[in-house]
Formats: sequence, structure tokens, C-alpha cells
Amino acid sequence: MSVDSTNKLALNFDENGLIAAIAQDFETKEVLMLAWMNEEAFQKTIETGEAHYWSRSRQELWRKGATSGHIQHVKEIQIDCDQDAILLLIDQKGAGACHTGRKSCFYRVASSGEKLTFLDEKSQNT
Amino acid sequence: MSVDSTNKLALNFDENGLIAAIAQDFETKEVLMLAWMNEEAFQKTIETGEAHYWSRSRQELWRKGATSGHIQHVKEIQIDCDQDAILLLIDQKGAGACHTGRKSCFYRVASSGEKLTFLDEKSQNT
Repeated sequence: MSVDSTNKLALNFDENGLIAAIAQDFETKEVLMLAWMNEEAFQKTIETGEAHYWSRSRQELWRKGATSGHIQHVKEIQIDCDQDAILLLIDQKGAGACHTGRKSCFYRVASSGEKLTFLDEKSQNT
Repeated sequence: MSVDSTNKLALNFDENGLIAAIAQDFETKEVLMLAWMNEEAFQKTIETGEAHYWSRSRQELWRKGATSGHIQHVKEIQIDCDQDAILLLIDQKGAGACHTGRKSCFYRVASSGEKLTFLDEKSQNT
């Protein structure tokens, strides 16, 4: 059976053993961050119900919120058609998912030109 | 100024010249797909207002919906803190984003064990 119609989990990790994982707030549907999982991070996430990732910068397993307290309780794990992307529906504890203190890592908008607009400023101006 | 506080666009493409791009329905907030952009795909998306990606399987620039008609009109392009992920808020035309005919590519749920549950079946059972 093809990868998009099977009910068998067969994650397609990339050449570095990683798969992209999107974290989305299960209530507001806000997309909070994109991170990476290896096989171990995926298994730990399933086992514990808390999001684990692979930190590419630190090259280590990363239990989200281990130091900050900003734990992500996982409500559902969705897998895409090609089994090469994961969508976590989460309950974000603490201030937010972003290391800058914001709820979401996506806080700037690109348009034509090289200048980004901060969504916080945007909301202040409107 | 650091990458997370600058207002200057400086996308951090990976070693293959690609960056992950999430497509989210701008109204329902449903996450529809995750795909990849190279520099050209990003520029074409900005210029045309329609989502362009880089097809890793076909190794070519891919105007989403070029053959299916399932165009994605881009309402906003958000950039994450590290500038290594993109979130497109889109208006999805046609049946959906997924090549299987579904609106979203995320239609299966993983839990412990190797069996995936289809969300369509799940909604039929509840």
C-alpha cells in the first residue's frame, strides 16, 4: 500500500535522520513553531505526552521546556500524506513557544523588499 | 543585530538551499501542508502572490496548483525567529492542498503503536 493510503506508521526521516514537526496550539490553532525530531524525539513524545525535539544547534535531544518550564503537552500527533512532516496539536504551558518570550516564533511579516514588519508593532499601529 | 530581533530579511536556507514553508488556511487556521522553498520559489511567491515551492522529488520549481488548479493565494508571509521557517497564510482554491484530494495533508493520527488512524474514519465513528 502506498505511503499516503496506508495506516502503518512509516516516518520518512531525511538524510540527517530528522523530520520537520510543526507545533500548533490545539485551541486557538495558532502555529507556534517549527522544529525537528529524530526517531528518539518522536518516541519520547509519544511515551511522555510532552513534545521532544532534536536540537540541530546543540545536537542533542531537547525536551521542550526542560529549562524554561514552557512545556508542550501533546493533544494529538498528525502525520502528513508523505509521512515526512508531523503536526503536533499542543497545549503550550508558560509564556509561549518562542525563546524570545513570545507565544509564537512567527512574529514578523515579509513582503516585497528586504524589510520585515513585526506583528506586535503592526497591532500597535492599527 | 541578532537574527531574531532584526527587521532585515535574511532567510537561513539549509545546506540544500531550502527552507521549510508551512501553508495555513488564513480563515480556518487549519494547517494544510508543509513544503519547501528555495530562494527562487520565495521570490516568485512574493512577486505573484501565489505560493511557489521547490519540489524535492521532481527537483523543479513548482507553482502550486499549476496542473490541478488548486492555487494558493498568499495573504501573509510570516518568518520565524531564526529565519529558517516560513508560515504562509493562504486562501486555498479548489478541493484542497493535498494530492490525495483532501483539504489538508494531515489526515492521519499517530499514537503508541504502529497503526495510524484516519481522521475521516474517526469523524465517521463519532
